[in-house]
Amino acid sequence: MQERPKTRLHVDGALGDGLTVGLDHERAHYLRHVLRMERGDPVAVFNGRDGEWLTRIDGFGKGWCSLAVRERLREQRDGSDLWLLFAPIKRGRIDSVAEKASELGVSRIWPVFTRHTDPHRVNLDRLRANAVEAAEQCERLTVPELAEPVPLERALAGWPEERVLFLCAESGGATPIAEAVRANAGRPAAFLIGPEGGFAKSELDEIRNRPFAVPVGLGPRVLRADTAAFAALACWQALVGDWMAGSGVDARPPDRSAADPGPPSIR
Amino acid sequence: MQERPKTRLHVDGALGDGLTVGLDHERAHYLRHVLRMERGDPVAVFNGRDGEWLTRIDGFGKGWCSLAVRERLREQRDGSDLWLLFAPIKRGRIDSVAEKASELGVSRIWPVFTRHTDPHRVNLDRLRANAVEAAEQCERLTVPELAEPVPLERALAGWPEERVLFLCAESGGATPIAEAVRANAGRPAAFLIGPEGGFAKSELDEIRNRPFAVPVGLGPRVLRADTAAFAALACWQALVGDWMAGSGVDARPPDRSAADPGPPSIR
Repeated sequence: MQERPKTRLHVDGALGDGLTVGLDHERAHYLRHVLRMERGDPVAVFNGRDGEWLTRIDGFGKGWCSLAVRERLREQRDGSDLWLLFAPIKRGRIDSVAEKASELGVSRIWPVFTRHTDPHRVNLDRLRANAVEAAEQCERLTVPELAEPVPLERALAGWPEERVLFLCAESGGATPIAEAVRANAGRPAAFLIGPEGGFAKSELDEIRNRPFAVPVGLGPRVLRADTAAFAALACWQALVGDWMAGSGVDARPPDRSAADPGPPSIR
Repeated sequence: MQERPKTRLHVDGALGDGLTVGLDHERAHYLRHVLRMERGDPVAVFNGRDGEWLTRIDGFGKGWCSLAVRERLREQRDGSDLWLLFAPIKRGRIDSVAEKASELGVSRIWPVFTRHTDPHRVNLDRLRANAVEAAEQCERLTVPELAEPVPLERALAGWPEERVLFLCAESGGATPIAEAVRANAGRPAAFLIGPEGGFAKSELDEIRNRPFAVPVGLGPRVLRADTAAFAALACWQALVGDWMAGSGVDARPPDRSAADPGPPSIR
């Protein structure tokens, strides 16, 4: 197989032999004027359904670019069944949560409003853009779903009982995370991270009373919300997810040339 | 015991019954004009040696504040013996590495220059400020040491052989992190995170040949340098550090009132 293309993009359309993929204005501009790519140059693409494909730039126009789909580079495979529910936090930090949740293999990112949540709005398009860019860079074959923000009670009311909800609360009784995660190996999972000010005590009690909720402890220090999210997701992947020995054919990332750090970010 | 003070500061001087602690201009201003604190108000302080103490504001002057040390709130205890060596990355991300390394219990933060490291300078004072502020907020009793940046070869040349160096490299042979960390339980540890562009291949070989080096794998996705640092540190704490069951008397953070998220950050 030829060398892997240095540029990798998520696309919406179908991928298969002989098909053509169109890129929008922003991406066409990026390929042509930022990366200075030309007709015939290779681009890897994935859509979350058909695996990863090698394409070649077929043509540029005013505000568009077409890619000719050539050859499958990787078969599609499902990612982890892992949700992240988190209370919106301030801008720089929430962007980083979306980025790192994507890198850490989360399948659904779900903003939830708790009693002490501030801000009360969340820019879903911005979060999605961060998650997609991270998926492109980290070699995922899927992108995380960005679920519509809802009040926490509503998320809990419709909860699928078979999915364990690991509650990351900084105080109160909890099982150390390594133990809790291993005890629930094989179940679809979700982590719930509270806002910077913590959950309300009444709220904590209500969550703990749910049969699917398992409070987990992240040690003796008070972690910021974003730190708690990264830490919890990493522990899950390491212990029962796709970082384990023998967890899949792609247990190490595809090789890159270390001498070439790749193109700058699109955004 | 009375309620814990909402403000917590790291100080340099000795702490003990009857002593007085002076604060510099920046912190005096913060207490007086940002938090609007007054004489007699409580402040928790720690210096990394004498535990955590309750103090009360004794007086404000032009550019200073004195705190009267009253009562020990927590005994000193050592933190984890865990180093983080990382290649400097761009500004926002390196700040966040210092902050989260502090929250995740790192004892020494050590910037090292690898062959593909860019930038070539690092603002140690800035990193230290981020680490100290995180220590104050996360209830640590110590602050991480910020070691003088050196070329990676020099750090390796003087390496203490008993300390395991977990190499987080994105390609090449590696043991899954959970397995590698458990196999080295009880040893002082360090994680080495490469620059955004990865290590040079020759450099990787040189590191791997050291008897104290253990390459670890962080799954099938290519993680950014900062994500890899957070993930690796969290796994270590969860599996062999102070997040484990029975790892210490302070296995959960001190209780805070969830209704009060505490004062804004000093910086």
